[in-house]
Amino acid sequence: LGDIVLRVGIAGLGTVGGGLIQLLQGAQGDRVRDRLMVEAVSARNRSRPRGVDISPYRWFDDPCEMAADPSIDIFVELIGGADGPAKRAVEIALTRGAKVVTANKALLAEHGHHLAQLVDQHGGALAFEAAVAGGVPVIKVLRESLAGNRTSSISGILNGTCNYILTTMEGSGREFTDVLAEAQRLGYAEADPSFDVDGMDAGHKIALLAAIAFGNSPSISALEADGIREISLLDIRLAAKLGYRIKLIAKAERTDAGVRTRVQPSLLPMNHPLASVGGALNAVVIAAEPVGLITLIGAGAGAGPTASAVAADLFDIVEGDVRLPFGVPSDKLGTPVPAGVGDETERVYMRLLVGDRPGVIAAISNALAKHGVSIDSLLQDPSASDSGVPIVLTTHRCSRVSIDRATADIGSLDAVIAPPLVIRLEDGPGSGPHRSN
Amino acid sequence: LGDIVLRVGIAGLGTVGGGLIQLLQGAQGDRVRDRLMVEAVSARNRSRPRGVDISPYRWFDDPCEMAADPSIDIFVELIGGADGPAKRAVEIALTRGAKVVTANKALLAEHGHHLAQLVDQHGGALAFEAAVAGGVPVIKVLRESLAGNRTSSISGILNGTCNYILTTMEGSGREFTDVLAEAQRLGYAEADPSFDVDGMDAGHKIALLAAIAFGNSPSISALEADGIREISLLDIRLAAKLGYRIKLIAKAERTDAGVRTRVQPSLLPMNHPLASVGGALNAVVIAAEPVGLITLIGAGAGAGPTASAVAADLFDIVEGDVRLPFGVPSDKLGTPVPAGVGDETERVYMRLLVGDRPGVIAAISNALAKHGVSIDSLLQDPSASDSGVPIVLTTHRCSRVSIDRATADIGSLDAVIAPPLVIRLEDGPGSGPHRSN
Repeated sequence: LGDIVLRVGIAGLGTVGGGLIQLLQGAQGDRVRDRLMVEAVSARNRSRPRGVDISPYRWFDDPCEMAADPSIDIFVELIGGADGPAKRAVEIALTRGAKVVTANKALLAEHGHHLAQLVDQHGGALAFEAAVAGGVPVIKVLRESLAGNRTSSISGILNGTCNYILTTMEGSGREFTDVLAEAQRLGYAEADPSFDVDGMDAGHKIALLAAIAFGNSPSISALEADGIREISLLDIRLAAKLGYRIKLIAKAERTDAGVRTRVQPSLLPMNHPLASVGGALNAVVIAAEPVGLITLIGAGAGAGPTASAVAADLFDIVEGDVRLPFGVPSDKLGTPVPAGVGDETERVYMRLLVGDRPGVIAAISNALAKHGVSIDSLLQDPSASDSGVPIVLTTHRCSRVSIDRATADIGSLDAVIAPPLVIRLEDGPGSGPHRSN
Repeated sequence: LGDIVLRVGIAGLGTVGGGLIQLLQGAQGDRVRDRLMVEAVSARNRSRPRGVDISPYRWFDDPCEMAADPSIDIFVELIGGADGPAKRAVEIALTRGAKVVTANKALLAEHGHHLAQLVDQHGGALAFEAAVAGGVPVIKVLRESLAGNRTSSISGILNGTCNYILTTMEGSGREFTDVLAEAQRLGYAEADPSFDVDGMDAGHKIALLAAIAFGNSPSISALEADGIREISLLDIRLAAKLGYRIKLIAKAERTDAGVRTRVQPSLLPMNHPLASVGGALNAVVIAAEPVGLITLIGAGAGAGPTASAVAADLFDIVEGDVRLPFGVPSDKLGTPVPAGVGDETERVYMRLLVGDRPGVIAAISNALAKHGVSIDSLLQDPSASDSGVPIVLTTHRCSRVSIDRATADIGSLDAVIAPPLVIRLEDGPGSGPHRSN
């Protein structure tokens, strides 16, 4: 690219857009940064105070007009939303062969295949490091650092709001609704928190990571997503007694039936690399051969971390380092396994509330044995409450279908007060000896 | 680069070289891999069994001849050693404008500036992801993902042997010499372990990371390196009682006097991201603005992880992604602060063995107060041994010069049996509120 200066148009001037302008305005004299110039900006409200001076830049009321403008070499989309102006503007920019940098996980998770086709057809570029895990460079690591590897699974804490809530529940001994309300007051959770706490935000992100790692189209329809609303303080405490911590885990893994992507609360053993990731942090563990396990931890959101990731994509473009959005041409992208296809084996934690009467544990054990589910540990909690006596058990590895059947049988027992809560249990990291140095 | 196939010559066929050949021989049909071809190999012994078939490749007895051969587009140096054939061969390849990929930390730490000059003069390339932390992609993350950031410090566990020894001492309750002997029997430590256990291996690695993060020439003369020979089981236990874990930490940070690079045993609070990194793993925490803290953890050595990192460099070259070795042209590289220049404030742990007599603690407290060192916590361990009564204390932050003077005074007290052991104490990670998502 020689000394060509690339002209950047930024659509969306919220905290991330402001952080990006600040970052790009700073540090004049930098070899790479001097080859990027903010040319134009667009937002809904021109006069809103933003803490950065946008007067040097051309203003567009309509991001689509800016995306269409031939003076813009790189269109930065920070509008958000899977459809609407964000999608239209990105399509316009890609269709004229421009380069697009975006932080928009929903857009990519839902329309990634179509956008990758536009890149292939028109020779532009589509980079989105900021769309997953904020400042944590998981996309670059997957796509570039692990290019010689075969990835078997990706597990992550990809929603900071949920991790903040779970961490705070454990630390403060308060229940979900209470902590959520506080998080909303503090601005850590949205007024409508469902997108975060029901797992869809993490789902979009793991769908993107799965696409890159496994060469699939990102797919929402193939996703199973559960959130954390059902997790009570009781479960957090009982899990701790058994040596586990509950986290909302987004996971993509190769199975016999193909690649499976899921978001669900999970019990992690305390020595799991994700168990100690607290607060609003994000983290990802990649299992791949021959590299082994790679763990990345950092801030998953916020103006600074997200602007850092957008800037990294911009600097890569300046350096001429442009990769295919999902690693392979769009017509070579595979299809992930739809949710619910195929059985598999797993270990689970089951929490019951029972009436305190003789024979309950025998009845539960019989129901499990009938379906071939064997118990690894069982704990009857002495701290009985009004709502019943808590019993928790963990199982050995067995088929999910058997677990579901046993759970249904147990739920129909007279002594069992509420439907059993079943949470997936993750094994610890491989504990083989590591070669030194 | 279109569909040009790049021809690779590999010098050094130990476990990493074998792992690399295996990786490159596998997965035919891959878009990127198909554009790399192993053309030639070189090693000391042609007929040694290696578990990979090297018969398809041209053989060179002399790596320098291979480096000079115009048929080799990319020279992969896996010979090792700061000087000798590794250095000569790399110089030859770079001087003819070829691209070099190496895992040789000693070569780069000692001659990095000179080699970067050869790259600038002749237009080749020099990539070395595998030289630091094995499969952990810390160089790419620093150079590319954090390109828009200002790094303030890098802290790492960069020597797996030391981390294995410290972790095993804690877990098994055995002393350093005992665990080291076992590690040698198991092949985790060299017959002559000094390079690892005295901190120089970690020193080479942090010198390289500092060079990239701060735009300096790598420098061994600016390095302060201490190892772990002085760390006893007693210290590990007493530190744990105070809420800390002892790790060998390699650290590069901006100070008022410039960039300072050090390797030293350090007490980490249990919530420090590096405190829970056990066994032979490597890990790095990068503190930078605006991204915040980024933590990377993985296998720091071994055939698979190291081959993965070498392959990533090769694939980057195939993709046309070639960066300057230390991020800026060699004539713009700065000079790190030599060891010992400038004072600074820090917190320390001090462990004493004293005779059990009245007035000892008063005498120690007086010596500290005289030099303005204030005590944060103090613990007299009840488990007195033949060698004296252990007393440990941690200080508040104060100047290192004051600490050294107080330590000298304390060491000269009659009641103090052995020279005090002083270990640097690291603060926990920033605990400000994280923005959610």
